[in-house]
Amino acid sequence: MFTEFNLTDDRPAYTQVKEYMKRLITVGVLQANQKLPSTRELSTLLNVSRNTVVSAYDDLKDEGFVYVDKGKGSFVAQIWGEAVTAQSWQLNWKQNISDQAKIAEELDLIKHGIRSIKGEINFTSIAPDEKLFDLDNVKRAFLDRMSIEGEIILNYGYAQGYKPLMEYLLRYLENKGVNLEGKEILITNGFTEGLDLILSALIQKNGRVICENPTHHAAIKIFKMHGFEITGIEMEQDGINLVELEKELSERPFDLAYLVPSYHNPTGIVMSPHKRTEVIKLLHKYQVPLIEDGFNEELRYSGSHIAPLIACNGNGNSVIYIGSFSKILFPGLRVGWVLADKEFIYYLESVKRAQSIHTSTLDQSLLYQYLHNGNFEKYLKKAKAEYKRKCELVIRCCRAFIPLKRLSGDGGLHVFIEFDDNFDTNVLLDCCRRNGVIFTPGNIFFTNNKGHHTMRLGFSRVADEDIIKGIQIIGDTAKQMMKEVQL
Amino acid sequence: MFTEFNLTDDRPAYTQVKEYMKRLITVGVLQANQKLPSTRELSTLLNVSRNTVVSAYDDLKDEGFVYVDKGKGSFVAQIWGEAVTAQSWQLNWKQNISDQAKIAEELDLIKHGIRSIKGEINFTSIAPDEKLFDLDNVKRAFLDRMSIEGEIILNYGYAQGYKPLMEYLLRYLENKGVNLEGKEILITNGFTEGLDLILSALIQKNGRVICENPTHHAAIKIFKMHGFEITGIEMEQDGINLVELEKELSERPFDLAYLVPSYHNPTGIVMSPHKRTEVIKLLHKYQVPLIEDGFNEELRYSGSHIAPLIACNGNGNSVIYIGSFSKILFPGLRVGWVLADKEFIYYLESVKRAQSIHTSTLDQSLLYQYLHNGNFEKYLKKAKAEYKRKCELVIRCCRAFIPLKRLSGDGGLHVFIEFDDNFDTNVLLDCCRRNGVIFTPGNIFFTNNKGHHTMRLGFSRVADEDIIKGIQIIGDTAKQMMKEVQL
Repeated sequence: MFTEFNLTDDRPAYTQVKEYMKRLITVGVLQANQKLPSTRELSTLLNVSRNTVVSAYDDLKDEGFVYVDKGKGSFVAQIWGEAVTAQSWQLNWKQNISDQAKIAEELDLIKHGIRSIKGEINFTSIAPDEKLFDLDNVKRAFLDRMSIEGEIILNYGYAQGYKPLMEYLLRYLENKGVNLEGKEILITNGFTEGLDLILSALIQKNGRVICENPTHHAAIKIFKMHGFEITGIEMEQDGINLVELEKELSERPFDLAYLVPSYHNPTGIVMSPHKRTEVIKLLHKYQVPLIEDGFNEELRYSGSHIAPLIACNGNGNSVIYIGSFSKILFPGLRVGWVLADKEFIYYLESVKRAQSIHTSTLDQSLLYQYLHNGNFEKYLKKAKAEYKRKCELVIRCCRAFIPLKRLSGDGGLHVFIEFDDNFDTNVLLDCCRRNGVIFTPGNIFFTNNKGHHTMRLGFSRVADEDIIKGIQIIGDTAKQMMKEVQL
Repeated sequence: MFTEFNLTDDRPAYTQVKEYMKRLITVGVLQANQKLPSTRELSTLLNVSRNTVVSAYDDLKDEGFVYVDKGKGSFVAQIWGEAVTAQSWQLNWKQNISDQAKIAEELDLIKHGIRSIKGEINFTSIAPDEKLFDLDNVKRAFLDRMSIEGEIILNYGYAQGYKPLMEYLLRYLENKGVNLEGKEILITNGFTEGLDLILSALIQKNGRVICENPTHHAAIKIFKMHGFEITGIEMEQDGINLVELEKELSERPFDLAYLVPSYHNPTGIVMSPHKRTEVIKLLHKYQVPLIEDGFNEELRYSGSHIAPLIACNGNGNSVIYIGSFSKILFPGLRVGWVLADKEFIYYLESVKRAQSIHTSTLDQSLLYQYLHNGNFEKYLKKAKAEYKRKCELVIRCCRAFIPLKRLSGDGGLHVFIEFDDNFDTNVLLDCCRRNGVIFTPGNIFFTNNKGHHTMRLGFSRVADEDIIKGIQIIGDTAKQMMKEVQL
C-alpha cells in the first residue's frame, strides 16, 4: 500500500493525496473503521510534506470519508452498506432502446456520415469559419454583462427566455417586416431544439408533413423520430414547384408544411417573392400550418432582401418561424428562437420548461450584449464579404472544372451540384477520397431515397488554394468516371 | 410621412434612421420601386445630419431593401410578392396541442404554482443564493478559457460533451467510488434534459415506474409526459420503505425505478448505507433498472460520505446516474450529466444530437475551467458553511414554533414538515399568505394525490431575520387553525 502514489504537477499536492486516499477507501483497500497512518507516517510513505497530509486529512474529514477519534487518530468512515453487490447485474441495453433512439442513431451523420481525416480537403462542413470570430468583442460583451448582473445570469432564468434578448429579437424580426400582432417568442437551444419542441407540442392528426425535396437532413431526422411520414416536393431554380405542391396538398391532408425559403439547405436556392405569396395562399387554401426555417437568411450576398414567409402572412397566425444565428455567429452558443402565435408559444413554453428548464442564461445574455454593443452588423459585413468572395470562387471553379448539369446556391455557406441522373456521387466520393478530397453526397438530403446524382459543397472553412485544388480533383475524377462509363 | 420619427439616444443615429426606413418599406408606406427622398432632403425631414442618412442608405442597399439607379437616385426594392395575403388565416392552436404539451402545461409550477409578490417572505425556492457566487473566479475562468481556445469553444462542439469537462467529471465520480468500467458519460442541459433524454431513448414495455413518495415534482411531470404510470413508495427516516418496495416489485413488472438517495427532494432524507445495498439487491432480484438522481449529493453538512447507488452497484451496468451542480454552483449555466452503460450512452448521444446538437460549449468550458482552477472546493466549503448555518436555524425555528408531527432534512437547501393527517397545508398557505409568508404545500410532490398535510420550506435565499419571522408566522397560523378545528 502507498507505494503506487505518484505526484504530478498539474494540481495541488494535498488534492492529489486526498484523491488517492479516497480511491483506496472507495475500492476497499482501506476498509470501514480501519485506522489511517498518522500524518507524519503518511508524509514519509508518500514523500510529501506533513502539511500536505494534514490538509488532505482535513478535507477527507470534511467530506465524510474519514472520522477522528480524539487521541486515537483518523479512521475510515462507513461509506458503503454491508457489501457491494457481489454479482453485479449486467443488463442488455440494446434490447431496451426505443424506436425513436434507433432512428436517431441510424440517421446520425456524425456516426455514419463522412469522417474527415487530417490533411483532407473537407467540403462537408457548413459551420462558420472560426477565424472570422471577433473574440475581443465576445469577451467585452461577457464582462459588460457580468458587471451589470452577474449574479442574475448565473442563477435560474425563465423558460421563455432572457428578456432583453427576446425584446431585441422581436425588434429585429419586426424590421424584416414581420407583423408581431398576436405573436410571441420563445428562446431555444438552437434550431434543432426548436423543431423538436414544436413537434412535441403539436397533436398529430394524420402524421404527414410536406416539405421541399431535398431538404435539411436534421429536419428529416427529427420528423422521422416523431413518427411523421414525409412528402418531398421537387425544387426549381426559384423555389418549390407550386404545381406539384398543390397536387399533393389536394390529394391528401397534411398536418404540417416545413420550408426553408432562403439559401435552402442543401440546394442554396432562394424562393422568389412571387412564390412566397403563392405558397402562403396554397397553404391557406388547404389549411396546412407552416414551419418556416429561417436558416441562413442573413447570408444574402446580392439581390433584394426578401421578406420571410411569416412576414408574407401578415397578422395571420399559421406560420411558426424558427430562427438562429448559428450559421453566422457562434454555434457553440446554443441559441435559437421560435416566433409564433401566442397561444401556441404558451404551451411551447411549458414543454420547454419540462424538457430543459431554460436555455443557458449565460449564452443568451452574452449574445444579447454582443448584439446590443453593435457588433453584429459589423461582424456580418465582414463575414458576408469573406463568404461572398469564397462563394464566387467556388462557383467559378465548379463551372470551370466539374462536368455538372446544374449548380445552385448564391448565398449561405455551400453550393449544390447536380450531375446526369445516372451518375453516382457516392462512387465519386470514394474515388475523390483516395485523392484527399471529401464532400457530402446529396442523397442523404432526399426524402425519397433519390438524389444519388447530387452533392453539396460546403466552403466556409476551406482555404482558397484548397477550394481550387479540391474542386479540380472532384472535376477530374468525375470526368474520369464518365469516360469509363462510356467505354 | 417622416413626421413621426423620433431620435433616441441609446443607439447610433444611422441605425435608427435605417430601421425607421425599413419599417416604412415593410409596412408598405413606401412601396416597391418608389423613389426615396435624396439624402439631403431626408436629413432635413428627419432633422439628422446628411452623413447619418448616407450611412443609413448604404446599409439599406447592402441589406437589399433599396436599390440605386445611377444618376436617378435610390428606390425601394421588391421585398414582397404581389401582395401580402389579404385575409390572413387564423388557426385555433388550442385544438392542435398534443397531450404531452397539455400535461406539461397542467403541471407547470411556474404557471400554476405559487407566485411570489415582492416583499413576501418566500420559502418556495430551492435555488442557490446568488450572493454566494464568486463572480471574479467565473470571469477569470471565462477569460482563461477564451485565451486558450476561444475560436473552438464558439464553434460547434460534440453531442457527447466537451472533452476536458467529461474527463474531469469521470475522475470526480471515480472519487465517489463509482466503478467506471464499461461506463460512459454524456453532458446534458441539466438534470431535466438528462431525464427527458433517457426516457426518450428507452423502450416502454409496461409503462410503469417505481419511485419514492413523495418525489421530485419535475420528475413526476417528465414521467407523465412520457406516458408512465407512477407507483410511489412511502419514505421512512432512513429512506424508502423496503418492505413496501419489495411488495410492489413482486406484484407487477416495472420498466424503471427512479430514486433520489441523498437529501431527497422534497423530504431531505438521506438513504442509509444499509438501505442502499438492499435497494440494489431488490432491483437486481426483480430486474428493474434504476435511474439515480444525484440531486444535492454535495450538500452534506454532517455525518459520513455515503456512496451513490451507482457506486454500490460495482461494475454492474443497471444504474443510470444523473448528476448536476445546479443546486450548488450556477443553475444559469445549464450543465448536467448522465453516467451509464456505454452501450446505452451510445444511443443517448444520438438522441441528444437529434434534439439539441450539444450543450453550450461556452457553459461547459467555463464550468470546466472554473473547476480546473480549483474554485469548486473553496466555493463548496463557503456555501456549505452558510447553508448549514441556515439549515440549523430553520430546524431550530421549526421545532420551536411549528406544531409539527415530523420534520426531515439535514442537508440540501430545504426541510420537509408533516402535520397530523387531517391538516391541510393549502389552507395554511392561504392564511400565511395574508401575513406575507409563502411556502410549497407538499401535495404536489406526491404520486397518489396525498400529502395535503405536508410542506416544503426552501431556505437558501431567505435572510436570517425573515427565516425567524416567517417560521413564527407559519407556526402561529398553524396553531390558530388547529384551535379553530377543535372548537
